Order: sequence, then C-alpha cells, then structure tokens
Amino acid sequence: MTEQLNILILSCGTRNKILQYFKKELDGNGLVYAADTSELAPALYEADEHFIIPRLDEENYLDSILSICKENNIKAVLSLIDPELNVLAKHKDDFLNIGTLPIVSDKEAVELSFDKYKMFKFLETNGYNTVKSYIDKEEFYKDIEYGVIDYPVFVKPVKGSASINISKVTSKEEVDLLFNRFDNLMIQEFVDGPELGADVYIDMISGETVAIFTKEKIKMKAGETDKSVSFKEYELFELISRFCEEAGFKGIVDVDVFKVKGEYYISEVNPRFGGGYPHAYECGVNVPELIINNIKRKSNEGNVGNFEAGVHMLKFNEIMIMNKDNHILD
Amino acid sequence: MTEQLNILILSCGTRNKILQYFKKELDGNGLVYAADTSELAPALYEADEHFIIPRLDEENYLDSILSICKENNIKAVLSLIDPELNVLAKHKDDFLNIGTLPIVSDKEAVELSFDKYKMFKFLETNGYNTVKSYIDKEEFYKDIEYGVIDYPVFVKPVKGSASINISKVTSKEEVDLLFNRFDNLMIQEFVDGPELGADVYIDMISGETVAIFTKEKIKMKAGETDKSVSFKEYELFELISRFCEEAGFKGIVDVDVFKVKGEYYISEVNPRFGGGYPHAYECGVNVPELIINNIKRKSNEGNVGNFEAGVHMLKFNEIMIMNKDNHILD
Repeated sequence: MTEQLNILILSCGTRNKILQYFKKELDGNGLVYAADTSELAPALYEADEHFIIPRLDEENYLDSILSICKENNIKAVLSLIDPELNVLAKHKDDFLNIGTLPIVSDKEAVELSFDKYKMFKFLETNGYNTVKSYIDKEEFYKDIEYGVIDYPVFVKPVKGSASINISKVTSKEEVDLLFNRFDNLMIQEFVDGPELGADVYIDMISGETVAIFTKEKIKMKAGETDKSVSFKEYELFELISRFCEEAGFKGIVDVDVFKVKGEYYISEVNPRFGGGYPHAYECGVNVPELIINNIKRKSNEGNVGNFEAGVHMLKFNEIMIMNKDNHILD
Repeated sequence: MTEQLNILILSCGTRNKILQYFKKELDGNGLVYAADTSELAPALYEADEHFIIPRLDEENYLDSILSICKENNIKAVLSLIDPELNVLAKHKDDFLNIGTLPIVSDKEAVELSFDKYKMFKFLETNGYNTVKSYIDKEEFYKDIEYGVIDYPVFVKPVKGSASINISKVTSKEEVDLLFNRFDNLMIQEFVDGPELGADVYIDMISGETVAIFTKEKIKMKAGETDKSVSFKEYELFELISRFCEEAGFKGIVDVDVFKVKGEYYISEVNPRFGGGYPHAYECGVNVPELIINNIKRKSNEGNVGNFEAGVHMLKFNEIMIMNKDNHILD
C-alpha cells in the first residue's frame, strides 16, 4: 500500500484553482483538505474535506490546526495568505513533530519579505538594483533638495499587502499629512516601467531554484494579476535564482519585479502561491507536482524556464451558489 | 421560420457569465455576438461570434457598431460599461432605424445616474432619503460649524465609478488639499450601515418595474460585489419600483442602497447589468428572458420579489489561456 499524501491548504478563500490543481496532481494518492475562517470561502467546496477554523488572533488557532493535521494524517500544510505564513514558519517544528511538512520559507526569510524597508536594505547591501526607500522623512526631504529623488513618490505602510493604503504623492505637504495621520510609513521612489512577476519554486530539500515562470502583468485588479503574458529572459532567471537562494527562500514564492531602462528591479516577495499562479500551471510549470515530490522526500531536478513565451492568461469571475441550508448547489 | 433574435453585447470585458446566460436563454433561436476594444477580453470567447471594435473616443466608433448591427441582423444591443451607455442612449434612433433595439434607459435617466450631485438633488426634491452631498466646500464647512454634518466624510468625483479616487477624509485640511488637487469633487456624508444592491428590470414596453432582486453585499472587491446574500423586504421593493419609474429608468438597472437605522437610502444607480447580477440569475430572476420577450415586442408581467431569501453568492476566479497564435485553449 502506498502512503496517503494528504495535504491541508489554509485560508483557501477564493483560490479555487489551487485546490483543483492539487486534487488533479494527487490523482487519488491522497486527499486535499481545505480550511478557512469563513464558510463563505468558495474554495472550501473544491476540497475532499473542509474545516472552518478559528481566526489567527484567536487563542486556540494553532492547536486546532495541529489537531486537524494529526487527526487526518496530513503530510504537508500550506497557507495562501501572508499573516499565516509567519505562524507556520515560527512553529515549523511543532508541525514536523507530528509528521506534517509546512511548505513555507524559514522564519527569517518570511519576516524579510513582509518588511519592505528591511527588504530594501537587504537588496541594497547585496548589490541588487533597488527602488529607493526611506522611513525617515527628513532624510527624504534632504534627498529631494539635492535632486537625488523627485516627486511623485509612493507613501505606503512598511508592512502591508494588496495595495492597501498606498498613495501616490506629489508634495511635501501631502507627505507630512500622511505621516501625521498614520504610523510606520515609508516613502518609495516611483518607478515607471512594466510590472513583471515570477512564480518560483525553491526545492525544499536541495535549496536550489528548480522552477521559474515569468510573466508581464498587463492588468491588475484589487492588487492581483488579472491579465498577464509569459516571457523568457535568461538574465532575469539568473537574477531571481541568485536572489531567492541568497535570501533563503524555500518552496513556492511569488516575486514582483520592475523593468526600468533595461534593468530589473526586485520590488517585493510573497513567500506563497501568488494570485497569478494559475498562469504558470497552465503553461506547464507544475508546482503542486514539485511539492508532492518534496513531501515524498524526493528532490526535484532543475528545470528553470521550461515554458512557452507569448501565452496570455485572462481571468474572469465564476460563482458558487449556497442555498439557505448552506449547501453548495451544482 | 421564426425570426433570428441576434443580440450584441458591447464591452463584454470579463463578464463571461452574462454571455453564458444569453446563450442559454436564446437556446439556438438567435446568436450572441460580443464586442470589445481588446482581444484580451475573455468574455469575447463565450459568444457565437466576436468583434474587436474601436474605442469610444475614436471617430469611427459609432459607425462600426451600427455596421455590425446591420450586417448581422442584430435585434438588440446592450453595453456592460458606463461610458458607452451615454452613446447608446443618445443615438437610440440610429439603432432603431436599422431594426436594433438598444437595451438602455433614456438619455436623461442615464445622465442622471452618472452625476452624483444631480442624483442627490433629484432624490431630495422628490422626497427620498438621501446621503447629504455638497459640491460647494464653503457650504459644507458651514454645516460642519452648525453641527449638521460631521467628519469623517467621503470626497469623491461627481462623475466616476468603481470606487476610483474615493477618499475617507477626517479634517478640513484634507478636504482643502483634495479640492486643490482635483476638479469636480463632491463631499458626501459617511453613512454606516449594510450595503444593499438591487437588480431591477423595468419593462421596455410597459415602463413598469417587473422584476427586483435584492441582496446584501457581504464583501466587495475592486468596487464589485464579491459575496452577497439575498433578502426580501416589500417596503424596499415598493421604494425601488417608485424610484425607478419616477426617474424614468428602463431595462436592466443596478441600484445601490444603504440601510441606516431601519431606513433605506438610495445611493447610486448603474443603468446596466451590475457586476453582481449572476446572483439574481441563479436565484431565478431571469433578466435575459425578460429582455428577449421585449425584443419580441412582448411585454412582461409584474413578478417582483419572486426569489428565495438567504441564498449566498460566492465569486471566485476562473481563467482562460490564449496561446501565442491568439487561440483560446480549452
């Protein structure tokens, strides 16, 4: 009898495609479990079984996840939202002790990715192109005075995601106003160039970057890629491989990149499946398969850039209907 | 031989469900044509045939739409985006002359719905509850002084949709800053209560409101309803019927309503299929069928509120993949 490779996907939300892909790749050799805090998360109903779990800030959160893993013989757990990645990374050993592999980077790398200023410093120190960033507004005003940087700039929270509270700002007056009103802001250079995204898999066993899919984002919607087109440039593959390994990322990672005057600028990392991952999968960059191999303690061979350029992804809305007894209708 | 009821849907964008519903309701008794300015609009590929058309601001826009209607024996045309509704309403006769019925309200009603301040005045004059609105900031400051209104307030463009550039503002300083930076703004009272939405059909022949579906919006995403739950209140049906007929709306209309302290406040009208319409359809409020009857010169019987309460709609993303030769893959 082969071992059942049960997988648990936390905070599945509206990410139905991810659930569908894991079910397809497991192909009966394990069950896909989904969890969310709300029964109104449609992706729950793609799974073989699903659980409604406490919120991250509730006391019994960690215990209930660990119980679900233990009781259902879960071999690997992953999350689709940022705040939960910290928890998985911090409590990695608790999961490993009960035989569950968290598909997540180490704590330090996860923290690096959620602190935009720390990331800026890391990139600067290690010789990568960076988008100029300030947390000290006086330092920024000095650079304005010396012509090192110009308006417009972005003012955004140091920690935060999905374009929430990001303001394009054109004057000192507005910078002051935002800094007076909100805490923990940073000022970031406005760069004008195509926005690119990379779906990257760094093997959990070998630590090597084994898959990269790169796309240009053509249209965004609510902070998520709505339309994109694949492209290939070996220079960018090399940059991303080096960066991910140097920063210590592991597993599936989504990297945002700008291209300005022919140069690549790494802007942000989400150490989880990005909202645009379905594009990569449909082009043959099969991350669920790579994860399943790692769960089986098999490392993956390097296969970076094995996809076709010029392929478009176009998102649209599908719906689920839940009747008044909370049953999903077909 | 029965007449072919060909229908053209303009600016179909990502509204795949609308195309699917029309195809289903026509059931072979006519073809569904779709048009968009971009070949990256996924809903194009749901239609029987599709066209890439000039942008609204291009000179040959109207002529190319009229040609498509004429050459393909189009019996009715509708648009899924706001700017195009003005054009359809303004040139209604040009379409009627070639045997195509534009499914759109009259020019005056369309204009009313796109001018938030005009709408405020209409509601106030006709005795409806309204959300207090100002275009004169000095008048607003006076009302602040007299305690008629309090911060926070919304500052938004008088004309504009999809929550673009809407700011929740807490001080005179911020109001001044926004008014200095942008033109044609208005200040609107911040009301705190459930956001409701109504999908309404006003018969194109009788002018009577024949269908209303009402839902509470549970979650929004990029200005669109992402999760909603149906509910029924006859008082609201009456209010919406009276309002739509008094304001002269026709065909399919999406009405936004707030409920504050037990009272309903009409906030906005989109005189087209709203982004949350699939909820209504799946609950049996079949607007494509009502439209098809009107095209056949058959008026519809009143059937307001014929749906079940407590039914949820949950949106999620589906994708289409277009290969490098611009073919959609199955």
